[in-house]
Amino acid sequence: MITDRFDPGPTGTFKSLCRNYPDDTVFSGADGFRALWGPIFYRGRANGRARLLVIGQDPAQTEAVTRRILSGQAGRRVQGFVEKLGFTRSYLMVNAFLYGIYNQDMALPHLNDPEIVAYRHQWLEAAFEPGRIEAVVTFGTPAFNAWTAFTATPAGQAVLPTVAFHKALHPTADKPGGPISRKDLLDNWNVALQSLHAGIQHPDLATPLALYGDDFAPEELPEIPSRDLPPGIPAWMRRTDFWASMSDSPGTERASISIEVP
Amino acid sequence: MITDRFDPGPTGTFKSLCRNYPDDTVFSGADGFRALWGPIFYRGRANGRARLLVIGQDPAQTEAVTRRILSGQAGRRVQGFVEKLGFTRSYLMVNAFLYGIYNQDMALPHLNDPEIVAYRHQWLEAAFEPGRIEAVVTFGTPAFNAWTAFTATPAGQAVLPTVAFHKALHPTADKPGGPISRKDLLDNWNVALQSLHAGIQHPDLATPLALYGDDFAPEELPEIPSRDLPPGIPAWMRRTDFWASMSDSPGTERASISIEVP
Repeated sequence: MITDRFDPGPTGTFKSLCRNYPDDTVFSGADGFRALWGPIFYRGRANGRARLLVIGQDPAQTEAVTRRILSGQAGRRVQGFVEKLGFTRSYLMVNAFLYGIYNQDMALPHLNDPEIVAYRHQWLEAAFEPGRIEAVVTFGTPAFNAWTAFTATPAGQAVLPTVAFHKALHPTADKPGGPISRKDLLDNWNVALQSLHAGIQHPDLATPLALYGDDFAPEELPEIPSRDLPPGIPAWMRRTDFWASMSDSPGTERASISIEVP
Repeated sequence: MITDRFDPGPTGTFKSLCRNYPDDTVFSGADGFRALWGPIFYRGRANGRARLLVIGQDPAQTEAVTRRILSGQAGRRVQGFVEKLGFTRSYLMVNAFLYGIYNQDMALPHLNDPEIVAYRHQWLEAAFEPGRIEAVVTFGTPAFNAWTAFTATPAGQAVLPTVAFHKALHPTADKPGGPISRKDLLDNWNVALQSLHAGIQHPDLATPLALYGDDFAPEELPEIPSRDLPPGIPAWMRRTDFWASMSDSPGTERASISIEVP
């Protein structure tokens, strides 16, 4: 028997936001968005129980299958990060962009387009409405800019003094051959962990902070909890990476997806 | 804006059955099952509101992406069928087998293996428990045999006098070059419609029964309602067929899936 918990889904305002959302006239292909995969809304507790708010960038092909953000390679790295902060379940992850991006140069300038920012702020307001969020972490520049835009609003101004905040590098900022090494990324995350850990009052598990070394250790890439995913998602989708790839014409708006069972 | 309803998910006993279910030691690859895609549990109202119970056979690759049964080609045919009976929402669809099959000769003899039948009967008992089901239709022989096994139990015996029942051909029984033509299939379904229609007291929409002609008319292949699928599933997944195919080594246990955005 399998006895996995699953995500029972969004409630209240979160549920409404999963029913009423901008379409591909807002996140258009001409602007670099891959709206054809549909929106991917969140991962974690879209029910008012979250104490940690994670802001990421945009969903990739893995998430178009699991229908939860941050569940692929970047997601497992982020999962290890939030677990180091003592959060095994009381987090909510949202992205700066509701739909995937196929061309960052084209898409990123639309971060604060009126309809994009209005919808995103509804998520952020809903996240803070229960008054439980203690810490906020953004991964990557667009996520940080999204947070900055929110903190310029009355709702954002109101919560700003109540939360610990840190801006971290994007979970896969260590591109091969790029300017940011794996160690650079983890050094950056270590600073973020130390900053945030001090501000967290109610972790799910109070644990001493263990920093990263020069590379991700296996236990620092935990599986995505089944409780974060829809019912019946097979374990290999939570425990392995790179099982979904873009096929045919990667990088274009219409990219198809190839799922390879490991 | 998109304002699509979505399936808020299973409740009560149905929720428990999506959390506790047989694994690949029960639905094993050696017995012809493709457990690697994970279980696909149902489509429709897993919340006690169903008045029509549909029993199908096993999920295919399309359903492994949408995570709801009967949402591909067979599903759209079945959707047309249930809508002819006046049901736009008050149905529950379950399969005889929780996981996909890659070899029917190997898998079908396991229809009533103790652990398979025990789990399936929990679903059927939960479907009838609220006392609202008025009609039952099975599609294909394994589904009919599953119903027969249930009606041999005390719980099945108790509901048998209370429901209209008809055994219909599998939704894609009209294989090219096979013994059953499209017209044979639709003639069979017309008999089923007439039989069931008379027994239905509370359709969602009371409509005169319109039978099939020699082929499916476009309106007889309606889209899968968004309210039957998880939040954010793009419309093309509900409105088109054949966007998911098996790649690499179709027909084997480990079949991978290729999603082609239309």
